[in-house]
Amino acid sequence: MLNRQDQSLDAGQDTTAVTQGRDATAAPEQSGAIVISVDAMGGDHGPSVVVDGVARASKKSPELRFLLNGPEAELKSLVDARGLGKVVTIRHASDVVRMEDKPSQVMRNGKDSSMWASVDAVREKSAQVAVSCGNTGALMALSMLRLRKLPGVNRPAIASFWPSQNSAGWCVMLDMGADIKADAPDLLTYALMGSSYCRNALNIERPRVGLLNVGTEEHKGRAELKEAYGLCRDAQERGDFEFVGFVEGSDLSSNKADVIVTDGFTGNIALKTGEGTAKLAGRLLKEALTSSVLSKLGAMLAMKSLKRLSEKIDPRRANGGVFLGLNGTVVKSHGSADALGVAAAIDLAARLAASGFAERLAARVASDMPIGQDAAQGDAANSNNE
Amino acid sequence: MLNRQDQSLDAGQDTTAVTQGRDATAAPEQSGAIVISVDAMGGDHGPSVVVDGVARASKKSPELRFLLNGPEAELKSLVDARGLGKVVTIRHASDVVRMEDKPSQVMRNGKDSSMWASVDAVREKSAQVAVSCGNTGALMALSMLRLRKLPGVNRPAIASFWPSQNSAGWCVMLDMGADIKADAPDLLTYALMGSSYCRNALNIERPRVGLLNVGTEEHKGRAELKEAYGLCRDAQERGDFEFVGFVEGSDLSSNKADVIVTDGFTGNIALKTGEGTAKLAGRLLKEALTSSVLSKLGAMLAMKSLKRLSEKIDPRRANGGVFLGLNGTVVKSHGSADALGVAAAIDLAARLAASGFAERLAARVASDMPIGQDAAQGDAANSNNE
Repeated sequence: MLNRQDQSLDAGQDTTAVTQGRDATAAPEQSGAIVISVDAMGGDHGPSVVVDGVARASKKSPELRFLLNGPEAELKSLVDARGLGKVVTIRHASDVVRMEDKPSQVMRNGKDSSMWASVDAVREKSAQVAVSCGNTGALMALSMLRLRKLPGVNRPAIASFWPSQNSAGWCVMLDMGADIKADAPDLLTYALMGSSYCRNALNIERPRVGLLNVGTEEHKGRAELKEAYGLCRDAQERGDFEFVGFVEGSDLSSNKADVIVTDGFTGNIALKTGEGTAKLAGRLLKEALTSSVLSKLGAMLAMKSLKRLSEKIDPRRANGGVFLGLNGTVVKSHGSADALGVAAAIDLAARLAASGFAERLAARVASDMPIGQDAAQGDAANSNNE
Repeated sequence: MLNRQDQSLDAGQDTTAVTQGRDATAAPEQSGAIVISVDAMGGDHGPSVVVDGVARASKKSPELRFLLNGPEAELKSLVDARGLGKVVTIRHASDVVRMEDKPSQVMRNGKDSSMWASVDAVREKSAQVAVSCGNTGALMALSMLRLRKLPGVNRPAIASFWPSQNSAGWCVMLDMGADIKADAPDLLTYALMGSSYCRNALNIERPRVGLLNVGTEEHKGRAELKEAYGLCRDAQERGDFEFVGFVEGSDLSSNKADVIVTDGFTGNIALKTGEGTAKLAGRLLKEALTSSVLSKLGAMLAMKSLKRLSEKIDPRRANGGVFLGLNGTVVKSHGSADALGVAAAIDLAARLAASGFAERLAARVASDMPIGQDAAQGDAANSNNE
């Protein structure tokens, strides 16, 4: 182990193992356990909140192991203070990607960053999934650089959960902002990847896929949407999804579709508009319930129900946008995530790792490639859960 | 008066005047009063709800006069039953534009429709503003056909109110779906038209204008947005607005901008996403407040505050998308509007008519045209409220 800054690291099992770059491999990732590579830096609230999130996830799922990427000395004291030495291996990275860094800069100069190290752990198969709260653009750029796109994928996408009235209570929406545009074949790829993610993350066997548009009639919308309509309609059988046609913004929270497909510009605007609206509604409700003595009393009586509601729709519980279309899975946590949010992102990462999602997704996308399509279709028919 | 179907129409002042096409002009529109041309048909709930809305608006503003467009016999009984004979003139139109009609069909075959007649009343200056609950695409197509675009406007836009934390409680957002795309000069025109509308409808003297994008950094987003950024920045002085740069979906309900500029595809998705999210929040809150005896009791105590909240954010009160960029003003009411919603749309129309908005907007757009720009700028400087 090189460059150790903290001389106390020689200690035994109860303190944290520290690895450096590719040379080092600690016990966890050799044991067959699920290992999550966590970027300790880059979130709005600094590494202590991220390590709190790791602690929370570890308490819920003690079998998980973690590679924690970031400045060794600082992380070691945080990890030891929480008694996480047995489940966490620290991977030293001296540099931090900031929210204002441009993706191109990070790709050129980010080799020593915790984000780079986090993604590289997946590339080296030291961990199954990476989790980061950092700069989305930089994380996507690094993930594409280090993990490379899956064969057959032109534009990778970010998929998120959206509150829904379907059986799972959530639908999958993509692209939430990996790219600012998407042509018709990209939208078809999103439909395939989104369906596969929906099956694995939400257990919906044959997801209903809708294309987001400004109206539900077949003649509406941009040219690429009309073309994608035909492509998705024809891919239903081999993609193992049901195509429900065009859906509108008002259908996102309805029970019309389990997967909503759109380009990254529109998806990002919709996501943030929905978040903003929900926040405004919450603020106004709070104002109303504290505006008079009677309403305060009323709110106290209804407290339990209101708290249950607030927990149900807590966006932290659905924290985690997943990068789809790469050789490996990366989960992007909200930059402002607190410990509960980080833990939710880690939990999602662990579920995806456990289901072998990366391999299933790769098989699904490969099955839709023009060459060898017949054979792959046969495989897909035998595997209902990829 | 031709083609009268109802022989009782010869009666005196207390029954409704009926006009037919261009030949007829009844008293109201010659008196200098504000006359609103109302499409009685095409809403989801039929003409009786529209006439209820007229009655409500008339009660609030007895000085208003109305041209009611639709099938004479049916409308006459509705108008007489509500004692509106003195303020309403019926303009016979036998045909109705349905929600599923394509705009191109309506442009070819819609001459006898109530929607066509409603718009033509503005063209002929029998009324200052037209209001319709009908098919948005058809209404925009007819409005463009009959009123024509203002000189200097390439793409007209639909502007709506959006709940905001600014001083007015609402901001203006456009385009909400008149066109599915907009290039950089269109976005600049939207900024100018939206500012003018914001000044006249919301009394914000120097509105803050933001361009909707996926991030606030100058290098983000599509090419036309980056170009529009420069155009808007340079137009602040002559457009009499403050350019605040890029805003995100989460900023719509904040206090960052009074006018949000975007293309009609994105605007439509954002509008419907926001509506859908608000509806979901309301439904979940209702469920929570009826889920137990205690919460029901609490809701009863807080009833007054909750009702005030519900009234405050009632989307019916902000009903009315305004078509900007035409020779005349058209207000599009929500198709599902009830009497309260229709009355709100009429109220908006009346306020715009009273402020001479159509002329102010035309002057503002003309002032930004390349030719004669200097002279027009001088004019604009003298008129702080167009």
